Order: sequence, then C-alpha cells, then structure tokens
Amino acid sequence: MEPTADQIIDAHKRILPFINRTPVLINNTINELTECKVFFKCENFQKIGAFKFRGALNAIMQLPKSQAKNGVATHSSGNHAQGLALAAKINQLKAHIVMPENAPKVKVNAVRSYGAEIYFCASNIQARAEKLKEVQDNTGATMVHPFDNDHVIAGQATVGKEIFEACSLLEAIIAPVGGGGLLSGTALSAHYFSPETKVYAGEPMGANDAYKSFHAGEIIPVEKPDTIADGLLTTVSERTFRIISNHVQDIITVSDKEIIDSMKLVWERMKIIIEPSAAVPLAALFKRKEFFKGKSLAIILSGGNVDLGNLPFV
Amino acid sequence: MEPTADQIIDAHKRILPFINRTPVLINNTINELTECKVFFKCENFQKIGAFKFRGALNAIMQLPKSQAKNGVATHSSGNHAQGLALAAKINQLKAHIVMPENAPKVKVNAVRSYGAEIYFCASNIQARAEKLKEVQDNTGATMVHPFDNDHVIAGQATVGKEIFEACSLLEAIIAPVGGGGLLSGTALSAHYFSPETKVYAGEPMGANDAYKSFHAGEIIPVEKPDTIADGLLTTVSERTFRIISNHVQDIITVSDKEIIDSMKLVWERMKIIIEPSAAVPLAALFKRKEFFKGKSLAIILSGGNVDLGNLPFV
Repeated sequence: MEPTADQIIDAHKRILPFINRTPVLINNTINELTECKVFFKCENFQKIGAFKFRGALNAIMQLPKSQAKNGVATHSSGNHAQGLALAAKINQLKAHIVMPENAPKVKVNAVRSYGAEIYFCASNIQARAEKLKEVQDNTGATMVHPFDNDHVIAGQATVGKEIFEACSLLEAIIAPVGGGGLLSGTALSAHYFSPETKVYAGEPMGANDAYKSFHAGEIIPVEKPDTIADGLLTTVSERTFRIISNHVQDIITVSDKEIIDSMKLVWERMKIIIEPSAAVPLAALFKRKEFFKGKSLAIILSGGNVDLGNLPFV
Repeated sequence: MEPTADQIIDAHKRILPFINRTPVLINNTINELTECKVFFKCENFQKIGAFKFRGALNAIMQLPKSQAKNGVATHSSGNHAQGLALAAKINQLKAHIVMPENAPKVKVNAVRSYGAEIYFCASNIQARAEKLKEVQDNTGATMVHPFDNDHVIAGQATVGKEIFEACSLLEAIIAPVGGGGLLSGTALSAHYFSPETKVYAGEPMGANDAYKSFHAGEIIPVEKPDTIADGLLTTVSERTFRIISNHVQDIITVSDKEIIDSMKLVWERMKIIIEPSAAVPLAALFKRKEFFKGKSLAIILSGGNVDLGNLPFV
C-alpha cells in the first residue's frame, strides 16, 4: 500500500515544528531562457542542507518508544546520514552511522557535529552492509533506510505538499531521482493534492536505472553508476518503483555537462548554492525545452551540500 | 550638505518599482558562532547582484531630461558598471562604460547584456580618466560617479532604510567600506530612521584608507591597495568621508584570510553566494566578537558577483 493522503498530511504536521518551510523562488533570467514560469522549491535551505531531513525525521518520530530507545542506524556518506543524525538528536536518540573510510571529511564532520556515532568501513556495498549489521547486533538500533520506507517517503512528500500550497495551477513538477524517495513522495503529493499537475523526473545518464526500469516495466540496476550528481547514484527499490510507475509521467536523462551548466546558471543568476543532484531537474527542463515551453512548473532544488574545495566550474 | 531624510525617503519611492526589496535572513549556526542575533540584508539578491543598482538608478532618475538624453557614462570594471548599465536601460538611456582591457570577460559580458556601449582602455587610473573624458566630449554623456554623488549616496541609503523597516531594536549595523557610498548611506539612514543603532564598518587591511583616514581626521589614501575584496579597493572621497566621520562609530579592519573564512561560512551554512567584499562585515564581527557579544545587529551582504572559475577556497 502506498502512503495515503492522510499519512502525508500527518507527516507534515509531525515534522513542521522542526523543519524549515523553505521558500519558493523565481528568477526572471531563467524564465526567459526556459520560456516557462518556473517555481524553485529551495530545499537547499532545509536543515542539514537537503530535503532528506524531512523523511528521516518523520521515520524516527513514528518509531515506538520501546524500539526508539536503542537508537537508529544507517549507512550513508551523504545527506541521509546528516538528516538521520539531526533527526535523532532532536528526538534525544542515538544515531549510529556507518560511513566509508574515504568519505569526505566535511561530511564526516557534519554528521559528527549532530552528535552521531560514526563507524568507518571499507568503501564497498558489502562492507557497509556487514558493518551496519554488526552495529545493529551490538546496539539494537533500528535501521532507517534512506528511501525504501513508507514513513520516509511520506516525509519527502511534504516537499511537494508545500509546493502545491504555495503555487496553484502548476502544469508540471520536476524532481530528481536517485533511490526514488523524493520522486515517489512528490508523485503521491501531486496525485492527492494537485491531480492536474504532471510529474516528471530528471536523472543523470550515468545512473539511469530509473529511466531504464520505467521503460522496461521492471527494475534494471546500473552496474557502475558514474555521475557528478553524487546524491543520485542509488537504484530505485520495488516500493519506490511501484509508485513511480503509477504516478510519474516520464523520466528525462541528462549528461553531467548539462547538469554542471544548469548548476552554474543557478549559482550565477540566483546567487544560491545547489549541489549537482539538485541541478538535474533544471537540466531536464532545458533538455525538453520545446515540450515544456509556456508551462507553469515547479522544480525541486533538492539540496546544497557541496565541497567548496572541489567544484566543477572552470 | 548631507542628503536629508526626505531625500532618502524620496529616493526609495523613486527606485522601489524597479529594485528587489531584498530579504533579511538569519542563520542559527552563525548566531551560535558569533553569540549575537545577526540579521543579514541580502543585496546579493539585488538586481545585477549588488546594491550598486540602487544608487545608480536614483542618480539617473534625477537627471534633467535635457541632460539625460545624451546618456550617462562611468569608468568601472565592477558592480557600478552593471548597475549604471541596467539603470540606463530601464530609463531608455544610453550608457557609456569605460573598462580596462583586462577586465574579466564575465563582467564585460554582463555590462554588454544590458545594452551598454563599452570602451576599452589601458588598466590604469590615468588611462581610464582620459578615455572617459574623451567619451564624454564625444557624446555629451553625464558622468555618474560610483560614490561621490549625493543621489548615489541617497540610493545606497535605502538599503539601511529597508533594514530598519524590517528589524527593530538593532543595536548595531555593519557595512563594508570601499569608496564609502554604502557606508555613508547606511550611516545617514541609521541617523534619521534608527538613531539608537550604532554604525560600524568592515574594511580589508590591504585597502585600509578609511580606517587610516578615520583615525587621522583627514583622507589618507593607500598607495597600492591589495585585497581579495575587489569591490573595496577605492578610496573614500571628501563627501563620503565627512558623513562617515560624523556618523560612524568605528572601522574594523580584517585580513584576506579572515574575509575568505567568513565568505566560506556564509556559502556553507547559508547556501547563498556572496562576493569577498560582502564577507568583510561578518569578518569584522568575528574580529570584535567580545565587543559585539549578545547584541542584535544587522550585516549588509553587499553583493554576490564572483568568478566561479576562480574561487578562493581550497
């Protein structure tokens, strides 16, 4: 069963005291370039710098007390780790985060700053899973998956819900897709709260599992995903794929060059910092410019966590 | 005579239909680090990416028609050139901009995109002045000085006016100082509209003419100004220095390293893009942390125009 409208409404009420209700911005230059009316939902201004805080917080706040007291755990080197760590801190729970030993120091420090316990492991999926299991066995902590979890999806769905509350008559909305938590949440919110809005996804060509799966009708993972959009390397799960198949119109793939160009445009013209993954929907809009021309649409800027010492601009 | 309260109020009414009334943002992390309550006035979100548009626009809109018809001129490779070019375009006037031949291409393109005529000259003050005179002789265009002009100062004063309308009970406000247009405007707005607010300036050590002049009681130029804060290389004029001497509490100098650290903090935690000059007031706040501790204060983020291919982060 997909999360219901009521579950998304409840999730929003639950997390609203703790999240930033992020602004929706417009930019004249980008409207001229795209020949659209574009509303940018700025989750780069969300706490921890990305939408992931919403889902992690909703999942944690749903845990029964008896279970929550042993803490929560996940493996991630990205925004989910920070989101879970802060959500745990707010709920006075312990967060156990497994990170690859080569994780960027800035990300390790961010997770640590929220008081989480960090466990390093070798940088491969198997080592991560083994380490996580070991941590769970030792602590009794509950694993909170970054996207394969209905409470997480309901939490991410609040991004779309806020967009539809802020903007009426949207003809389309474009979200990035990695594991599909944000995209499936967005699709559900459109379905329930703005059924006239068509939902599209932007996906990097170098990690186009959602695109391939969408067209094949079954999950087709990408062997070695490779893209600058480091938040979108993961593969959709059965849970997110089902929602995407039911409620998403199309998935538009873009190259890393197109992602960097759109990222640079947002930095230069909007003067806000977004991460490569967040630039994917705008790149998708440019890719299908003729199709979207004249439309009123929303784009989700999913996050703003970048390593300033290692930027893709020249 | 300094610009009066009425002149600033009139300037604001005049330019308000064309400018962005920029937001005032707060950031919990920076409040914790500074142990202050800091309100950031985001002129990086102003049109052309900097406050300079306000002063240039006010000056142009004050010109008698008979004079305006021959256009306006200035020499600048920075934000004033863009501000004057856009202000002229809005008023359907010709802007003639003298730029050094080594000006960054991105700035030349920005000025050109507003329809201004560009004249290149050698990269020294004398060549600039000569070229500007030649252009004025040929066109009859009116020179609009970047800061030594009461209409420009009144225009820049609207930044402070908006701050005092948005935030009450401010104990201090910190602006950057280069030629002193923004600082003197801010000081006048505080004097008229929020007399309980004390005005401070941040200035780069490598271009500390305002600091030296302030303490000597007369203008002391810096021979070879050298700082990453490229908007603050100029020396105060008699006009701005008089206002600064009358209404500014103190000038706090900071090193380039301190500027870069504050710039990075704003980028990382606020996810907004500011230029080095805009980071100077925050660096000044950190420099005098003990003094400002516990205060409610405003900081002017003066602009966000940076060359993304040449950033000071490592």
